[in-house]
Amino acid sequence: MVSGNDGELAAIETIRRGLPGPPAGETWIGDDAAVVVPPTGRHLLLAADAVVEGVHFDLDLVDAADVGWKVLAVNVSDIAAMGGRPLHALVTVVGASADMIEGLVRGLAEAAAAYECAVVGGDLSSGPRLVVSVALTGSTGDRGAVLRSGARPGDALFVTGPLGSSAAGLRILRSRKGRGGTEPAGPEPAPEALTAAYRRPVARMAEGLAAAASGATAMIDVSDGLGIDLDRLATASGVGVLLDVCPIAEGATREEALAGGEDYELVFAAPYPDEVVRAFGAMGLRRPIRIGACVADPAARIIGDEHLEASGYEHRLA
Amino acid sequence: MVSGNDGELAAIETIRRGLPGPPAGETWIGDDAAVVVPPTGRHLLLAADAVVEGVHFDLDLVDAADVGWKVLAVNVSDIAAMGGRPLHALVTVVGASADMIEGLVRGLAEAAAAYECAVVGGDLSSGPRLVVSVALTGSTGDRGAVLRSGARPGDALFVTGPLGSSAAGLRILRSRKGRGGTEPAGPEPAPEALTAAYRRPVARMAEGLAAAASGATAMIDVSDGLGIDLDRLATASGVGVLLDVCPIAEGATREEALAGGEDYELVFAAPYPDEVVRAFGAMGLRRPIRIGACVADPAARIIGDEHLEASGYEHRLA
Repeated sequence: MVSGNDGELAAIETIRRGLPGPPAGETWIGDDAAVVVPPTGRHLLLAADAVVEGVHFDLDLVDAADVGWKVLAVNVSDIAAMGGRPLHALVTVVGASADMIEGLVRGLAEAAAAYECAVVGGDLSSGPRLVVSVALTGSTGDRGAVLRSGARPGDALFVTGPLGSSAAGLRILRSRKGRGGTEPAGPEPAPEALTAAYRRPVARMAEGLAAAASGATAMIDVSDGLGIDLDRLATASGVGVLLDVCPIAEGATREEALAGGEDYELVFAAPYPDEVVRAFGAMGLRRPIRIGACVADPAARIIGDEHLEASGYEHRLA
Repeated sequence: MVSGNDGELAAIETIRRGLPGPPAGETWIGDDAAVVVPPTGRHLLLAADAVVEGVHFDLDLVDAADVGWKVLAVNVSDIAAMGGRPLHALVTVVGASADMIEGLVRGLAEAAAAYECAVVGGDLSSGPRLVVSVALTGSTGDRGAVLRSGARPGDALFVTGPLGSSAAGLRILRSRKGRGGTEPAGPEPAPEALTAAYRRPVARMAEGLAAAASGATAMIDVSDGLGIDLDRLATASGVGVLLDVCPIAEGATREEALAGGEDYELVFAAPYPDEVVRAFGAMGLRRPIRIGACVADPAARIIGDEHLEASGYEHRLA
């Protein structure tokens, strides 16, 4: 819970003012722990993800509000990848100046509003570098959680959208700072759509609920790259994967789509493809892209005629 | 949830091997989010506290296992200060070497066993300095949470034990490293009891439950110093405080007891002192020390004939 010396009181007030307060009967920021009504449902989900200056972001390329948005969105993405809804977030901020805290809180508040979850507490500390760590609870409602490990041979594989926008956006941001990237050649797509995909990734919360409703057997979010994240799903499930296609976002390269990471689209396995299309349509969501299938050979990692590399992550380092 | 590139797989395996695994029907480390049975009870508690190398600890004075113990214990202390029991912890580790991770996990596992809670997930990242952030859930069972804000004039004030051991232990550790502290003059108490109080603080979980059961109206843990933490309780409750005594641990100075912090004893207000004594006795706990009372003047901060300074925190920086 937020605590500290008098110098931190102003920061805590900034945080409190910038975020919605609790409903009657709950206590959020300002006590030893936040007090909330226990969530109902079959499963409680608990996710944690941190972002570190110089590792996950570079304040030359993004601002503090982007960092606040992103750290909450990537945690929502973890909850979405289980087929859940986010509920309550705790945010720990290390090494932020007063200005940074204002920006962080703005981005956190925007993401919390977008994903209908609440920042209920956290901790503040000085430190040599900005580190923002979020822990997030979530609920699966009456359904069980969708693990990584439930895929079976024959299940179809879907991804909720084309990939590579985030890595392309990072490339553009770097090129603008004279750091070796190149702007896209043509006028389309608007570079801002790509840089926004990097700065303000969208967690596919509704898509995760639709996938769970349509009987998804396994799901993961594309945080580190399609190759590596699909390898994790396949390994956990004990199946192989055979991809026909990797959907590439406009303006991104094939390498960025396969290994760029930070797209936060969801990849899932589902035995009834028609049911998937129906569930997404019923919720008014973009139809997910069928990219291949799970196969019995647990060693198979194939895309077209090639080996699907379990690569990613290091490509997205700022 | 724990994720990352292949270089982190070994670290994740170290963590998994060093900690107990989930019961049937739950999924802990290794998916996008941990899946647990939703806690029942009147209130869900959510606490977060981070420790930062060079701010909260110095690896010249303590080892990684101490850091692991302490970061979990201080979060348990936050849950205890609400009258709750800890349930599920998420641990985010930034900037740890493989050796450090082994030590951290050992300390975390010891604290998790001691406080009967579980480390169910977290995140790992590289970074310039060791930062360990814990988020912890807790339950108050059938009772409501004990906030900081419920104290009323006339309530007696108790502390669960004498104060200053931790600050005295830090002084001894510093003196051994030739950093300006002085060893205690006499042979008693054993310096190891004091250094252990600093390295391995004890969260007063059972005492928090006893205080809640005996009708405590407000409670806080002495993390930053009796003066500052009691000021927080009094300010939140809109009461003043009049102390007769500050119980000083053997081997500690009065200044260390009043402003040293990191003792993690609980301070609470209770309208029925006899009930407090009875509840602690029934649970086989050391009788808490009655230190004074809450008064109607909200500005009163008095100890004996003196002003009770709202100081602390900076004294405990390693």
